[in-house]
Amino acid sequence: MLQEQLWQQVQLVRAQSPLVHNITNYVVMNNTANALLAAGASPVMAHAHGEVEDMTAIAGALVINIGTLDDYWVKSMELAAARAKALQRPWVLDPVGAGATSYRNEVLRELLKYSPAVIRGNASEILALASIESATKGVDSQHSSEQALDAAKRLSEAVNCVVVVSGAVDYIVQGDRVTAIANGHPLMAKVTGMGCTATAITGAFCATAPQKPYQSAVAAMALMGIAGELAAAKAAGPGSVQQYFLDALYTLDEQTFNSKLQLTIVHAGIPV
Amino acid sequence: MLQEQLWQQVQLVRAQSPLVHNITNYVVMNNTANALLAAGASPVMAHAHGEVEDMTAIAGALVINIGTLDDYWVKSMELAAARAKALQRPWVLDPVGAGATSYRNEVLRELLKYSPAVIRGNASEILALASIESATKGVDSQHSSEQALDAAKRLSEAVNCVVVVSGAVDYIVQGDRVTAIANGHPLMAKVTGMGCTATAITGAFCATAPQKPYQSAVAAMALMGIAGELAAAKAAGPGSVQQYFLDALYTLDEQTFNSKLQLTIVHAGIPV
Amino acid sequence: MLQEQLWQQVQLVRAQSPLVHNITNYVVMNNTANALLAAGASPVMAHAHGEVEDMTAIAGALVINIGTLDDYWVKSMELAAARAKALQRPWVLDPVGAGATSYRNEVLRELLKYSPAVIRGNASEILALASIESATKGVDSQHSSEQALDAAKRLSEAVNCVVVVSGAVDYIVQGDRVTAIANGHPLMAKVTGMGCTATAITGAFCATAPQKPYQSAVAAMALMGIAGELAAAKAAGPGSVQQYFLDALYTLDEQTFNSKLQLTIVHAGIPV
Repeated sequence: MLQEQLWQQVQLVRAQSPLVHNITNYVVMNNTANALLAAGASPVMAHAHGEVEDMTAIAGALVINIGTLDDYWVKSMELAAARAKALQRPWVLDPVGAGATSYRNEVLRELLKYSPAVIRGNASEILALASIESATKGVDSQHSSEQALDAAKRLSEAVNCVVVVSGAVDYIVQGDRVTAIANGHPLMAKVTGMGCTATAITGAFCATAPQKPYQSAVAAMALMGIAGELAAAKAAGPGSVQQYFLDALYTLDEQTFNSKLQLTIVHAGIPV
Repeated sequence: MLQEQLWQQVQLVRAQSPLVHNITNYVVMNNTANALLAAGASPVMAHAHGEVEDMTAIAGALVINIGTLDDYWVKSMELAAARAKALQRPWVLDPVGAGATSYRNEVLRELLKYSPAVIRGNASEILALASIESATKGVDSQHSSEQALDAAKRLSEAVNCVVVVSGAVDYIVQGDRVTAIANGHPLMAKVTGMGCTATAITGAFCATAPQKPYQSAVAAMALMGIAGELAAAKAAGPGSVQQYFLDALYTLDEQTFNSKLQLTIVHAGIPV
Repeated sequence: MLQEQLWQQVQLVRAQSPLVHNITNYVVMNNTANALLAAGASPVMAHAHGEVEDMTAIAGALVINIGTLDDYWVKSMELAAARAKALQRPWVLDPVGAGATSYRNEVLRELLKYSPAVIRGNASEILALASIESATKGVDSQHSSEQALDAAKRLSEAVNCVVVVSGAVDYIVQGDRVTAIANGHPLMAKVTGMGCTATAITGAFCATAPQKPYQSAVAAMALMGIAGELAAAKAAGPGSVQQYFLDALYTLDEQTFNSKLQLTIVHAGIPV
């Protein structure tokens, strides 16, 4: 059963300490590295054209986050994603700011060709990305979560990958299979890079279970949400949340994880 | 009256959550984003030549900080500043390290042409910038605050903008109008990027009151100083200050703000 | 005696607040700047080809860290290192990820030509670097500490510099002179950039004692280890360690430093 395997995945990352190659944005590099370390993984950040493919080849998973992209970095992302695809290494895409500029949309259209295992974004980003994929112009970030869920299903089928829509409730979608995680806390949205961290943690989980991207995404979102709740319960504001979140990622135990977990199987779909 | 309107501006940022476009340095991107979030604003960092103008166009204000500039980023700054000027969107300049190298001085001379609404720097930077603007060579960072104040007045008149000189006392200057904020704490100088954060917060305030750059700068410096005092009162060193500062930005209430505020109108000038 | 001079060096950095020029990686720029400030130094980060030599010329020491290198930054590093060598300004090299890709190895081979005063890395990196220097191919990161120590001695002699091998015990090596510092705590390895911080702090110490790179490296590693122990004793996980570490760097006093110091002279060698 899915729920019982989640804690095993948390333990697997702690035990194997997988190398996760991140090509991510300047704002969150420090957070991302710290969160991966706290969860038990081993982060590496590298983007030089002269080494980016070599780094992907020695890593267990690749994470691409377009937050502060420019032409040099886009080329780095393409080189790494192509190598990951060639090696059948799982990679996770964070489409930060999808829909905000046509430049971002073009870059994302290109990256989708390299078959990410998982895409994680907020409702606006997933709506924008589904719209890009179906060549529809115009993105309304005011769409509801239900509409994001429909977009996630379409995107999942078009790209043949797992799609995570983050929010007050996180939805993990693959075709018509939908799981909801209702953990987390509103203060998390006041700390920059919490979404980017969720994407990186998903990469770590994929690295230790490359054949199980769906379960990896569920486990990662559950871990994020529960660690965020524990942090928010102690915190006096967003500054403290960031610190306590890392502490919680590192110290979380099985009993707390299972007692806090708020998972609902929205639609069982065909288990993958 | 100026003093009574400051808290209203704090509330306006929290209520409207303006999008603030930052082209800033690598060292402080994370702090800056977190401080904008904690103050209620919505940060975006973007610098690709292919999107930087589009991002400025959808933001309420632009913040340019030259801390870790290079040729690519300077071009990004120019593109964004030109677009902000064309759209009459307020933008705020942080002349980090003005006077340290001739490269920085040349870049600043160029950026001043795009009519920033506010310039915020420490005494040495404002002295250097005034010197650049008046084509005088040689900058002595050992000048006194009073001399920085004179330089601020000259710079304000030459560029037709508000100039903020940060220090133990912050001076907000426009022509002969001078307001002093005596809040803050020496430990803030031991946390990297506190000045950069002040500049970014000024951008958020300008975004919600684009016709009132002077009042926005005063409100931003007051908020920074008071949040810093509250943080330092709880802190055991500079590491804790950073965390508690974000908590204070987020939780500060009107009564505390007004009771802590140490504002002096040094010279009333002509209210703008 | 070496041990008695260490606290004097800590005080010297606090008293002189040397300017330390860092060309370092995106992940740790914020930490590095905060740690330098907390230790009493004055950090500057600058990499533009148009100013990097000027910045090195006004700094007391240069720190080069290749963590997130690319071609532009490698050129920056070479320009700065060449200027440092020409001015006989001490510079410290952090060979992050040495051995991971051939691109990194080629860059490191080039940088070694500019005569760093100190090289600091973990066992794998020092083994890789010694291997690069002796033109031997193939690096096994599973080598033991003792083998890293031999590599450190060879590297020190080949490059004519001090070599620091960080780990549970830190070894400071110059030729056959070896000092061991047994301070520190395992939680430090769960915070990104602690090694990079050690390198930057070493730069600050070299800046105030440019003729004493060996003693500077010992003092820096002692300060790092003791501050880390104090932080870990208070911390609930890696998130808190980062904060308390900065607090400890800032507040550490002579009595605590001397009572905590665990220094062993492994081999006296010829004092330099």
